[in-house]
Amino acid sequence: MTRAKRGPTGGEAPEPARLRPRLRVVRGEEVLLGPGMARLLEEIGRTGSLRLAADEMGMSYMHAWQLVRTMNGAFREPLVTLERGGAGHGGARLTERGSEVLSLYGEMEAGARRAVQGPWRRLRRLLS
Amino acid sequence: MTRAKRGPTGGEAPEPARLRPRLRVVRGEEVLLGPGMARLLEEIGRTGSLRLAADEMGMSYMHAWQLVRTMNGAFREPLVTLERGGAGHGGARLTERGSEVLSLYGEMEAGARRAVQGPWRRLRRLLS
Repeated sequence: MTRAKRGPTGGEAPEPARLRPRLRVVRGEEVLLGPGMARLLEEIGRTGSLRLAADEMGMSYMHAWQLVRTMNGAFREPLVTLERGGAGHGGARLTERGSEVLSLYGEMEAGARRAVQGPWRRLRRLLS
Repeated sequence: MTRAKRGPTGGEAPEPARLRPRLRVVRGEEVLLGPGMARLLEEIGRTGSLRLAADEMGMSYMHAWQLVRTMNGAFREPLVTLERGGAGHGGARLTERGSEVLSLYGEMEAGARRAVQGPWRRLRRLLS
């Protein structure tokens, strides 16, 4: 922490409380889409590579691959296409459907964030 | 499951996908208020007992007690007062502040749920 502001007790000023909304699409206990998966779609779109996307998230390639498999199986059309073999091992592409799903997820997140602002401001004032 | 509707493959119709929003108030990595804690406040208000509230949630008394301690420490005023000793071991009362926090949390949850309905309807149609 770079802030050196000190509270009345002389300790570091406490980090401010944040509201962390998490949206998950589930079927039974299986998560079909959530914050980590949405971020993975984003990174795949940005890097064009499942390996780079996984690295970016500090996630194993196998775990990323499993998440893609889950998402692809959960939707009517695949969200990600994977290129097998070749020098670009782990090449991955976000499909049109993948972009659409990512954008709808982002819309839900933004909507939820906006919707909670009023009560969150009031709740925050009650925190110590 | 009581539904016996069968899909084209003859198997059980898949459970419908649901959207599960989770709101957490965090400071650093510490959760100050979340779905489980809100439910605990609700059960304390309903039962007037930390033990009964914990039982209702399938949670140990000690865990419930720790959650109450975290919440009480996170807010300017305690959300729950605990009565020590006596026959009503584990007697607990939601304070006025506790009711206010619970109601603000419920407002945030309801607001988030409403806000995501539009994109969620569109996203749901893309699921298999």
